[in-house]
Amino acid sequence: MRGVSIVGAGQTSFGEHWEKSFKELIAEAGIKAIDDSGLARKDIQAVYGGCMASGRFIGQEHIGALIADQLGLNPIPSTRLEAACASGGVALRNGYIAVASGLYDIVAVGGIEKMTEVSTEDASFALGGAGDQETELFMGATFPALYALMARSHMKEFGTTEEQMASVSVKNHKNAVHNPFAQFRTEITVEQVMQSGYVASPLKLLDCSPISDGAAAVILCASDVAKKMKMDGKAVEIIASTQASDTLALAHRHNLYETRAAKIAADQAYKQAGIKPADVSFAEAHDCFSAAEIMAIEALGFCKQGEGGKFTEQGNTALNGAIPVNTSGGLKACGHPVAATGVKQAIEAYLQLNEMAGKRQVRGAETGLTHNVGGSGATAVVHIYRRL
Amino acid sequence: MRGVSIVGAGQTSFGEHWEKSFKELIAEAGIKAIDDSGLARKDIQAVYGGCMASGRFIGQEHIGALIADQLGLNPIPSTRLEAACASGGVALRNGYIAVASGLYDIVAVGGIEKMTEVSTEDASFALGGAGDQETELFMGATFPALYALMARSHMKEFGTTEEQMASVSVKNHKNAVHNPFAQFRTEITVEQVMQSGYVASPLKLLDCSPISDGAAAVILCASDVAKKMKMDGKAVEIIASTQASDTLALAHRHNLYETRAAKIAADQAYKQAGIKPADVSFAEAHDCFSAAEIMAIEALGFCKQGEGGKFTEQGNTALNGAIPVNTSGGLKACGHPVAATGVKQAIEAYLQLNEMAGKRQVRGAETGLTHNVGGSGATAVVHIYRRL
Repeated sequence: MRGVSIVGAGQTSFGEHWEKSFKELIAEAGIKAIDDSGLARKDIQAVYGGCMASGRFIGQEHIGALIADQLGLNPIPSTRLEAACASGGVALRNGYIAVASGLYDIVAVGGIEKMTEVSTEDASFALGGAGDQETELFMGATFPALYALMARSHMKEFGTTEEQMASVSVKNHKNAVHNPFAQFRTEITVEQVMQSGYVASPLKLLDCSPISDGAAAVILCASDVAKKMKMDGKAVEIIASTQASDTLALAHRHNLYETRAAKIAADQAYKQAGIKPADVSFAEAHDCFSAAEIMAIEALGFCKQGEGGKFTEQGNTALNGAIPVNTSGGLKACGHPVAATGVKQAIEAYLQLNEMAGKRQVRGAETGLTHNVGGSGATAVVHIYRRL
Repeated sequence: MRGVSIVGAGQTSFGEHWEKSFKELIAEAGIKAIDDSGLARKDIQAVYGGCMASGRFIGQEHIGALIADQLGLNPIPSTRLEAACASGGVALRNGYIAVASGLYDIVAVGGIEKMTEVSTEDASFALGGAGDQETELFMGATFPALYALMARSHMKEFGTTEEQMASVSVKNHKNAVHNPFAQFRTEITVEQVMQSGYVASPLKLLDCSPISDGAAAVILCASDVAKKMKMDGKAVEIIASTQASDTLALAHRHNLYETRAAKIAADQAYKQAGIKPADVSFAEAHDCFSAAEIMAIEALGFCKQGEGGKFTEQGNTALNGAIPVNTSGGLKACGHPVAATGVKQAIEAYLQLNEMAGKRQVRGAETGLTHNVGGSGATAVVHIYRRL
């Protein structure tokens, strides 16, 4: 297994794209990524594209072939990966494996979701497919309800407060102001979060990531090839790529206040990279709900279990904190076009490590980490990055 | 990249499984495959599962996590692959790459589809997602209609007859009689095919593969590890694994009478394996429609372009012919639970090469080939197998 680096990145803005189709979003992100890499389309040998629920959102499957076609990349192999909200992370990991194996030198990795073409009810049903439909959604539990159970369990076990959860959203909105691709570029206050309506108690509207359209893409290249081709100017190497699974249904978990798959994937990633949590300069963590980020930073070892709420409230994960988390604005404020998220996280790492993150730049960023979660935690994918 | 072998296989019967759930089908095929390999669950390091349209068929996504959970394999990485009707083949190929890379020694690969829980109209819409919804299905073209255009083009270009197409179905039904897992274990005649109603002219009901439920699974092991662990008794090595893409919509193809992605994947596979079409002892080809098998055997080089109809009518692809095709009964008669098909094809190769195919055994089978197609040909996956 050889080294693999990101040598180009591109994304659409995240938000409600009434004027752009699924295919146009793919073209925009894909062409931007190819252009950024300085490569030609003929240099790309395979595509790995993440997409969660295009079947329900737009009636379209066979997304691998669609991506290759849309970008004029036929006849190269093009494959869709799905792992609910971790579809982008899983696509990145499979592209990484294909290059690390020596099978390909250069591949494109993308994530795409167009969620706003259906009603909120239909979107809610589609997203429910990330959990166990049989025992959860069909019994009346929407996805916010599942995370509400987890949040409630964390509150009961560790004394986490709703204000602490609100501080996650406040921080992520603050970061998003400086991200030109973010869906919500407005600051909010803890009071505003507290006064927003309950979606599923204790989670309120401003604790929840939105429904979004968007696409993100990166170009991966074998690190040795990137050096040889003098493509290492902005190259960011993936120094760890790990994935783990947990039970699909919450009812089968050991407890609801921790995300076991994320903990396992993180531990393996630190081992693969040969680093410790304290060595991480910044992280993109999967904050589909504010409480999820609290559990994420605990699983990633940035603070002790149970202390994620206090840790956030004290500002440790702010842009100028000990470990800045979700400088992009996270899922909450950058937006969450499901499968695009995992790839967008990798783009944020690429930008930060190249000091291209503008006003949200983390000073002296040397090591980045991304944490992408599927469903209520049944899939977790962790990647760690450093400048090549 | 090191050698990879199939060391175990299991499948459910294909058909209408009113009494078994999606999850139960996965458990049945998965446990059979693990048992057949002689391994324990703890030996399996990752799962690659193909599934096309579970979102539309049963409202469930996140199939990778679901499979791992259902088989008690947590917390290993488990990933869903989708490439329409080639989802199984693509899952096999990604499992192969992961083992060939050295990342894992042993992985499970599966394919699953439960299609009978929705109305025929809804199933038709879901399957339409394999083509270009925007320019095809939404304009009124069902999937049989797309293949009818291809069949008509082949007839016009090469003089292929409806009787020749019918001979594909007749042969595949004849083979299925001897496959205990097949959906239709009854012989049919050319006259019966000719008299069955038109679905989309020139394709009649008996030219079309059915809507089916089913699951199939294989266990892959690095060939050197299989030898070391004395697991090489029934081991079948994958000596080539290739994939190619074409435009999603028929309207963008150079012509409609050939499947270009299949030709490219086949040529690459022969090159990887270091063999010629004449070296293949038997093949499983993607006969979603009878005309598709005719185009498949041309793309695979078993006969010249345009001669697939005559070649089949003359018995060359029969069980005792020069190159037996679809000894399992193919999609037409074994059934076609979409994503299970590509994995079932690999199981047929495993059985044939181990002389475990009973009355449908190909005598002296040394080299097997499988050809799995997504949509109207936008994805093609080819694998070639030999005893380890």
